[in-house]
Amino acid sequence: MGYTIVAQATASGLSGLAIIRVSGDEAFIIANKCFEGNKKIIDAKSHTILYGDFIYNGVIIDKVTCSIFHKPNSYTGENTIEFGTHGGAIIPNQIINALIDAGCKYAEPGEFTRRAFINGKIDLVQAEAVADIIHSISVPSATISAKQLQGGMTNMLDKLRNNLVSIAAMIELEMDFAEENIILSSEKDILENIETSIKTCSDLIKSYHTANILRDGFVVAIIGKPNAGKSTLFNSFLNTQRAIVSSIAGTTRDFISEIIYINDIPIKVIDTAGLRDSDNIIEMEGIQYTHKMLQQANLILFINDISNDENNYELLHQISSKYPATKIILVNNKIDLVENKTTKHTPNSIETINISANIQDKNFIKLKNKIASISKEQLKINNDILLNERQYFKLVETINSLNTAKELLLQSTISEILSIEIRNAGKLLGELTGQSWSEEVLNNIFARFCIGK
Amino acid sequence: MGYTIVAQATASGLSGLAIIRVSGDEAFIIANKCFEGNKKIIDAKSHTILYGDFIYNGVIIDKVTCSIFHKPNSYTGENTIEFGTHGGAIIPNQIINALIDAGCKYAEPGEFTRRAFINGKIDLVQAEAVADIIHSISVPSATISAKQLQGGMTNMLDKLRNNLVSIAAMIELEMDFAEENIILSSEKDILENIETSIKTCSDLIKSYHTANILRDGFVVAIIGKPNAGKSTLFNSFLNTQRAIVSSIAGTTRDFISEIIYINDIPIKVIDTAGLRDSDNIIEMEGIQYTHKMLQQANLILFINDISNDENNYELLHQISSKYPATKIILVNNKIDLVENKTTKHTPNSIETINISANIQDKNFIKLKNKIASISKEQLKINNDILLNERQYFKLVETINSLNTAKELLLQSTISEILSIEIRNAGKLLGELTGQSWSEEVLNNIFARFCIGK
Repeated sequence: MGYTIVAQATASGLSGLAIIRVSGDEAFIIANKCFEGNKKIIDAKSHTILYGDFIYNGVIIDKVTCSIFHKPNSYTGENTIEFGTHGGAIIPNQIINALIDAGCKYAEPGEFTRRAFINGKIDLVQAEAVADIIHSISVPSATISAKQLQGGMTNMLDKLRNNLVSIAAMIELEMDFAEENIILSSEKDILENIETSIKTCSDLIKSYHTANILRDGFVVAIIGKPNAGKSTLFNSFLNTQRAIVSSIAGTTRDFISEIIYINDIPIKVIDTAGLRDSDNIIEMEGIQYTHKMLQQANLILFINDISNDENNYELLHQISSKYPATKIILVNNKIDLVENKTTKHTPNSIETINISANIQDKNFIKLKNKIASISKEQLKINNDILLNERQYFKLVETINSLNTAKELLLQSTISEILSIEIRNAGKLLGELTGQSWSEEVLNNIFARFCIGK
Repeated sequence: MGYTIVAQATASGLSGLAIIRVSGDEAFIIANKCFEGNKKIIDAKSHTILYGDFIYNGVIIDKVTCSIFHKPNSYTGENTIEFGTHGGAIIPNQIINALIDAGCKYAEPGEFTRRAFINGKIDLVQAEAVADIIHSISVPSATISAKQLQGGMTNMLDKLRNNLVSIAAMIELEMDFAEENIILSSEKDILENIETSIKTCSDLIKSYHTANILRDGFVVAIIGKPNAGKSTLFNSFLNTQRAIVSSIAGTTRDFISEIIYINDIPIKVIDTAGLRDSDNIIEMEGIQYTHKMLQQANLILFINDISNDENNYELLHQISSKYPATKIILVNNKIDLVENKTTKHTPNSIETINISANIQDKNFIKLKNKIASISKEQLKINNDILLNERQYFKLVETINSLNTAKELLLQSTISEILSIEIRNAGKLLGELTGQSWSEEVLNNIFARFCIGK
């Protein structure tokens, strides 16, 4: 960790400006070798900006600004220099290569944020919030991540952890003075305290589902027979807006998916290959990807061509019984082609909307509003927390530990194993926020980051 | 121009940092509305960095740095704020939208640099150098552009312009005092002066060819019959290195092209569809794109399958006579498949290299070295100037004007039209550097820029 690191902190591409960040003990000395400006870097105050030439091997590479941050008042907590250079493919690389030549090491993915954590600038929940902010595909998730970066969640968990530690300490103290029969806290109080802690953790856990939706999108799968109008509907969804993040969200090879936004909620719409009559949805191993897609769907739109006389509801029934927990809407398409068509085969339990997939009329808007209200319903819980998988499983472990403590207390009186169990719950919360950590945990977390963060 | 503008100055994408730039009279007042930090923006000194929350409608959007530049000491010459925010798809947009809501206007392409020009921070040649730096695909062109940004070319042109203006003034003065017969400068001196100026401009013009190669790449077209090994050779070129700018350089629809680097010189290698035996290269209107490609080529590699008994040299002769000015190398491929094969049909005038396109052995290296030396030959002239098209044509006009002046002087004595012509040459140089300009000229120049520059 002794070395000084360098990387481009901004995205690569054609742009007026790129920022090259240098952080470490030698940052000023190394940067000074390459910079000739109105003042020397080593003479400049913290939080000031110099202007001058970035020079390498006697050649001026670029006119640059040079922002100076003295430790500990920088992102990483170390001495930091940020060179503001011209963007594009060549200059930033030349500047980075020059700085490596002058003594820097090229930064590992997430190394700047990792150093910020090691130096106590941020805790683990905040470090993860940094990644979440950057990868956000929706305004709500970015907003919650920014809130999490302020430290709110960590404060709450620290309070909970301190509370558990003091209960455990109290139990240990009472056991030491057991013969004097000093009662510091009643078993009833301890039980209540444990139950409150379980509830706090459980409430947090409930937000995991919301977090997943905000992070990856509310998944709407469009399914149906060939020519039912799946792709037409898919395109209608996309046409109603400018897709702002499709290039970042990416698409899978198995099916086409795009992110659209309804009331700021990211909706991941997935278009699938048509299911044939011969497909048996119950034995769908052969069409693995459709199965995988339907498994992750928050909502299934079953498209039915109502102008066609075939009875397609058998397939609908199969899907509905295979995915009983998933909300399904039957979308009768090509309603403009039929008059007074009854939909007598429709299962009563399944909500039906009639549309013409190629026309964005009031029926189409009704379908969009329906998706909006269903997605909103699922986003009700705890809008201030955006739990990730690591945090989720840490909380699950904490709850398990507290439940064990609760059972111990109900079965018997206070005991050493009770205090151990409560201390363990506290330790797990400490691991969540990063009060205790291992290299392995950090490696896992920062692997998600990219270079320059 | 009274309004305050905002745009992202760094490239969009997943990154730790993005910079949002605000410039104009109201920059501090508008930015102050959205920022709560350790100090108020309006109280902070120039070239200092604040740290705090970016707040919009009572919600913290992000933790940001806030760099402050007081006019005229900023990029644009105006009051400027640069917010350092987290990167990604959401936060930078939210920050920009908030600033627009608070009173900013979204910047036009190139508007920051245009304002820098209008406010006298840089001249036109420097403004164009900014665009050239960013769009550079090679180290030499970036280096020369950075040099040009220092103002060297403008200084040279200004000296030339001042010289022409003083000659014209002297001529006018002499004509006023013609009756007193006062000689301020001899006709011989004036002629010499004009001729020196023509030479200076002509030398500059010679660098245009070099500039084009450095800017867009030295174009190597690979041509030949189907299965001669064109694509194999193309891939061999690409495999010898990591393609660092192919995503920026882009490819055309008509043929595949990639940029490779030999000794830092960008080589644009173009792979073409095969020419059939029936193709008549002289009447190539039917294969327009091949014609277009060969026209812009700096070097043609004609690939011939030497293991094949056919005589392919007829096609080679046709190409060589249609493009007499373009260097052609005959590349006999699949040399590993033949023994003691004579290449008796090879035209004497055409250089020949035998290779096995799929093997990167000494023959392949010989071919690469050959390309390197040919490209280097064409890059000999004036390594300090990177002329663009506008500048080139302005210099051509200047030379035309000076030649007219020279003829006038040779035909007769000093005269009013002589001084007008010399003044015109000076004016053209002033237009080149931006001493005089029109809205239309600026619009054309800055249309090349993107938003945020």
